[in-house]
Amino acid sequence: MSRKVKILGTGKYLPRRMVHSSELDKKLGLKEGWSEKKSGVSYRHYVDTETASEMGANAARQAIEEAGLSIHDIDCIISASGTYEQPIPCTATLIKIQLDLVNTNIPCFDINSTCLSFVTGLDTVSYLIEANKFNRVLIVSSEIASPGLNWDQKESCILFGDGAAAVVVGRSEADEASEIVASLTETYVEGAHYTEIRGGGTSLPATSYCADNHNEYLFDMNGKAVFKLSSKVIGGFMKKLFEQVPFKASDVRMVIPHQASGLAMRIMRQKLGYTEDQFMNIIATHGNVISASIPMALHDCIKQGRIARGEELMLIGTSAGLSLGAVLLVY
Amino acid sequence: MSRKVKILGTGKYLPRRMVHSSELDKKLGLKEGWSEKKSGVSYRHYVDTETASEMGANAARQAIEEAGLSIHDIDCIISASGTYEQPIPCTATLIKIQLDLVNTNIPCFDINSTCLSFVTGLDTVSYLIEANKFNRVLIVSSEIASPGLNWDQKESCILFGDGAAAVVVGRSEADEASEIVASLTETYVEGAHYTEIRGGGTSLPATSYCADNHNEYLFDMNGKAVFKLSSKVIGGFMKKLFEQVPFKASDVRMVIPHQASGLAMRIMRQKLGYTEDQFMNIIATHGNVISASIPMALHDCIKQGRIARGEELMLIGTSAGLSLGAVLLVY
Repeated sequence: MSRKVKILGTGKYLPRRMVHSSELDKKLGLKEGWSEKKSGVSYRHYVDTETASEMGANAARQAIEEAGLSIHDIDCIISASGTYEQPIPCTATLIKIQLDLVNTNIPCFDINSTCLSFVTGLDTVSYLIEANKFNRVLIVSSEIASPGLNWDQKESCILFGDGAAAVVVGRSEADEASEIVASLTETYVEGAHYTEIRGGGTSLPATSYCADNHNEYLFDMNGKAVFKLSSKVIGGFMKKLFEQVPFKASDVRMVIPHQASGLAMRIMRQKLGYTEDQFMNIIATHGNVISASIPMALHDCIKQGRIARGEELMLIGTSAGLSLGAVLLVY
Repeated sequence: MSRKVKILGTGKYLPRRMVHSSELDKKLGLKEGWSEKKSGVSYRHYVDTETASEMGANAARQAIEEAGLSIHDIDCIISASGTYEQPIPCTATLIKIQLDLVNTNIPCFDINSTCLSFVTGLDTVSYLIEANKFNRVLIVSSEIASPGLNWDQKESCILFGDGAAAVVVGRSEADEASEIVASLTETYVEGAHYTEIRGGGTSLPATSYCADNHNEYLFDMNGKAVFKLSSKVIGGFMKKLFEQVPFKASDVRMVIPHQASGLAMRIMRQKLGYTEDQFMNIIATHGNVISASIPMALHDCIKQGRIARGEELMLIGTSAGLSLGAVLLVY
């Protein structure tokens, strides 16, 4: 069932500090050029003093402005991120503070499916808007990956960057083509431990941290296993996704993939049969920004005029879980 | 707009280890009886070896059985909890593993609004079921509060317990009265710092933990400020909630409140004008189990035969944020 919702505006914020791959080559004691070649990332951004909620609020202000709205037109704030600023309260609340929305009582909550959090958030919100629960929802994905990187895992640590993106979603008028046409998420738990941070939750609390178990608190990825499992299931996933709609995968004007890695995106693009022009690729200048990658790429796609109202768009990606998720929409 | 959804089954799991308030009196060097009198908690449970996903799966199995379903009838798993087992992947994924659902691809994601996570989860899921996105959703709230307690804050540490509850939600048939009638959540960020854990997220990572900043990684609550703000806004909140429905607050058969503290619940009950019989109170034997408190109390309410199909039920509570949230439903 399609939902008459519309992306009203998007915003993006990148931390001031740019980190070139050559800087990481030096840090890791590798030959100049190794990190960029391996990751497809020329540079990414790391926060210095910025917090997730500050970055999220900056992206949000831009999204609201581009939607031609005032901040007081928003009636719900959702943080759709794989990381969180504090364990308590939820990050959406902290973003609301940064937006100076102290004197309103609009609700805040968080949705988390790691790298797919934005896709899950957008899909979920579309049902709430369709049912008139909310009119205009602000979805913010703000990620600080840098403190969780494991510098002993050189193939994964070079991939990630920090930053935020935000999207305002609202109702699509009867005479507008904009809608979410279909969506699908599948979780394959045989891959649950391929991508994880084991320490910092209730199974190994932050207060158990010490020098000896340092790596337990850092990002751990078996990239090959993730890639193998994703490749195995993507065909069936696409079939099931497009069975729901009256058009073919090849009719999609633009694909906004999760910016997992340069290599993963190239293989995924070829497997799905899209041209480079149709497949948003911002990894060279952003890195993998966890859940913010998809809304960042969506923002750039719109700003660069590569998608017009009424054209089909697919957001698609993988996340820890291992999950595959996609939303098909008419922009 | 009401949603034709129905609570099909509920389950609860409590850790084996019971911790009586007298044990905490000794630990805290307080006079015997102080903790119980102050908190209203006679005993609570703390995990010894149980993980959040194991507890959640135990509660889930019971909920599925009580719904008369098989685990393979579930088409989505949502963890609606204020704590998480690992920072990555999301807890719903880990619960799915514990349920031996390795060979299915049903989706998993997490919703977090701390103590109101279950209420937010149930409300959100109801729209997804109403729109036929899912048929039967498993919502699990599994909380391990004990490692995050600050034993220097004696008035808050005595309140909390560990445990899990689960609910299976599905579609209500045309001839069934069951439905969600209305819901409301409001977030008042002037109270965002009244209840928090500052360390363990991206603003103060787990890897920055040391003996000197130990308390930053523990639960910090200004109970008086929470209570004052909640009391100020609850009247307007109730008015707005009941404006949506054709019945009065006094028509509600049973209220399932968040089990915040003995005192807070007594004052809230009197303020809202409910009798003790109408107001589920399980704090004496459970403590405050964060988001699991409401579905645990709902489970006990149903098991004790205190609510019948067709009767009105209100789930209501506060959470860090500060948020107020409620769902009005016909059980």
